[in-house]
Amino acid sequence: MERDQVLRLDREDALAGLRDAFILPADTIYLDGNSLGPVTHAARQALIDTVDDEWGAQLIGAWNSADWVHLPSRVGALIAPLIGAGVDDVICCDSTSINLAKVMAAALDLRATRSRVVSERGNFPTDLYMAERCAARAGHGQHVTWVDSAADIEALIDDDLAVLMLTHVDYRTGDMHDMKALTARAHAVGALVVWDLAHSAGAVPVHLADADADFAVGCGYKYLNGGPGAPAFLYVSPALQSEASQPLAGWFGHAAPFDFTPDYRPADGVQSFLTGTPPILGMRALEASLSLWRGADLAAVRAKSMALGDLFIDTVEAVCDELVLASPRDARRRGSQVSFRHPAAYAIMQALIAEGVIGDMRSPDILRFGFAPLYTRYVDVVAAAERLVAIVDERRFDAPRYRQKAAVT
Amino acid sequence: MERDQVLRLDREDALAGLRDAFILPADTIYLDGNSLGPVTHAARQALIDTVDDEWGAQLIGAWNSADWVHLPSRVGALIAPLIGAGVDDVICCDSTSINLAKVMAAALDLRATRSRVVSERGNFPTDLYMAERCAARAGHGQHVTWVDSAADIEALIDDDLAVLMLTHVDYRTGDMHDMKALTARAHAVGALVVWDLAHSAGAVPVHLADADADFAVGCGYKYLNGGPGAPAFLYVSPALQSEASQPLAGWFGHAAPFDFTPDYRPADGVQSFLTGTPPILGMRALEASLSLWRGADLAAVRAKSMALGDLFIDTVEAVCDELVLASPRDARRRGSQVSFRHPAAYAIMQALIAEGVIGDMRSPDILRFGFAPLYTRYVDVVAAAERLVAIVDERRFDAPRYRQKAAVT
Repeated sequence: MERDQVLRLDREDALAGLRDAFILPADTIYLDGNSLGPVTHAARQALIDTVDDEWGAQLIGAWNSADWVHLPSRVGALIAPLIGAGVDDVICCDSTSINLAKVMAAALDLRATRSRVVSERGNFPTDLYMAERCAARAGHGQHVTWVDSAADIEALIDDDLAVLMLTHVDYRTGDMHDMKALTARAHAVGALVVWDLAHSAGAVPVHLADADADFAVGCGYKYLNGGPGAPAFLYVSPALQSEASQPLAGWFGHAAPFDFTPDYRPADGVQSFLTGTPPILGMRALEASLSLWRGADLAAVRAKSMALGDLFIDTVEAVCDELVLASPRDARRRGSQVSFRHPAAYAIMQALIAEGVIGDMRSPDILRFGFAPLYTRYVDVVAAAERLVAIVDERRFDAPRYRQKAAVT
Repeated sequence: MERDQVLRLDREDALAGLRDAFILPADTIYLDGNSLGPVTHAARQALIDTVDDEWGAQLIGAWNSADWVHLPSRVGALIAPLIGAGVDDVICCDSTSINLAKVMAAALDLRATRSRVVSERGNFPTDLYMAERCAARAGHGQHVTWVDSAADIEALIDDDLAVLMLTHVDYRTGDMHDMKALTARAHAVGALVVWDLAHSAGAVPVHLADADADFAVGCGYKYLNGGPGAPAFLYVSPALQSEASQPLAGWFGHAAPFDFTPDYRPADGVQSFLTGTPPILGMRALEASLSLWRGADLAAVRAKSMALGDLFIDTVEAVCDELVLASPRDARRRGSQVSFRHPAAYAIMQALIAEGVIGDMRSPDILRFGFAPLYTRYVDVVAAAERLVAIVDERRFDAPRYRQKAAVT
């Protein structure tokens, strides 16, 4: 695409104004918002205000006066429209890993007479570890069957299936499952489905209620820009809320936490999935970043996400055949990321970062680029693709300094 | 005590200079640091720096460049000297409730052939709920026996005892257990002990290693001043670290989290008790507040804590016999708080807060005052006691506006 055309895409982008809500380093093209979303002005200010006006000025009283006590449900209600959920069916708490432990345990208990859990071996590691441990500890003799390919799931959907646990958008390839179809298939045999939305929320349209999903969890620090290690969220279908019970019973999930009663009486609905005292600082930052989505045209967000990904693929493939597309070519089957394979992926990504384009690398050979539609411009995508191709073509990655692995890649 | 004498105590207080490290509202005497510690200048600045210089400027790279990846162990190492633990034996993560779930499960598994768990009915609710659920779900047929009085514990320490789970300092009365003696008694019959240090860390001397404690958890937002819902911590005895295993297996507890391998291989030592991505903002604030303790004379902290409590009791009791002391009179058996009972406790505390003295109330009749030695002055203690007594004596609490219960009390 000619440069003029690319500039016009940015000029005509209805979402372009949102970029000003973010604090982005100069001379950097940031395509790793699928790993850690950047700072928003709103989150930065909310943190300062929370420290000065609430924690600082109101001290313990802020639990009431600043309504900290309802932050988990208030932030949940802000996330709900992004994932097609009712505002009362989502709650913000803990980490994605901990929330997986809660919903998996609840789901396994609800299908205690069935023995099989199915997930994908390519699922994010925490999902794998949690599924194994939860199944082993639920006390119902359940076990996990891992499939190597999504195509193998179908054959395992039968009367012995207890829980199908899937990540909606694959963290390496960006492959997106058909949530509605798979949920319906599982329900047809009486099984439950747990969806991990880590790479979906704020990136692609999700319709939990419409898909009749049973449980879901997701992450606050990727496309929702809540900050490093931001609180996560979880969803429980309204149809299951009265019967679902989670094992991490803590005082914040009690019906009357401040009565300090010795017997556990779970709160109504999704509130019973809370455990300990909520992390207010992180939750305030996430809440502020979520305010950007108020009134956002989610169809426009998705259309831009697909267009950015297509433009990146086209620009790379037009001049380079050494990088092998690892993501679906069809944007409708793809999350908001594009991945390419190359045996020297690690060194290439290091070289690219050194030249100001930040993506990331996933073992063994995946170069991963996230396109967050709220702040990524078409010109960024083209410039990133051109730099990537130049690094590969000119072997600029072939330097010793690019081969040393850091702790986090 | 005469006012001159009180002022002299403050002038001669070796810890007095530390008060300047805190941001405290004017015209307020804050005696609720045992519920939520106040803001420190260090924590406020650390949050701003983390947002601007790390999250903002370094984005995803900050996991390495700002060493976020080691924050859980780095903060754990700062907490260690406050609880008499080795720097490698403490880790900062999740909430106290979640950490209780981890260490209780680990302890129950290590004593799977024994059936009894013992704790106190007056323990903090989360501890009660977690003990019940953990015992029920461990799969070893274990059950919890609740004692109404610490004196009843002794009779239940026998060969069937799996785990003794106690809170070191009672959250209502401030009663402090003899950690070393009780741990030794439990060990004598082969049982394990889990200590909750929520009201101990940063308040009273704790010697986990010397007491040969097995597991401990604690809170970051009380005397450690980490902010509302700050990350909590946990301790695992070095003697148990190679055999103890916790059920909430997540990617941050893996030996090589960034290899993204499908099989869970727990990290060495206490690191294996991590689960999900650590909450960086909250951890940075806590880390900064903990820096105040560097080089702190813990004996001086304890001496001042006892003196503040004694002064409060003496000042109240000198002129008022309507308030009944609920805490041990012997400061050596008391945490860093003093509680009085009164049937109108709720209204009295509301009146006291309206007059600028912030303590809190615990059902049904406890007025609770925390004396954090790092920022509480002797003059504050006397002024608070005098205002409390005046409110009681003059029935100033007997107004309708003081009877309305708020969500959090």
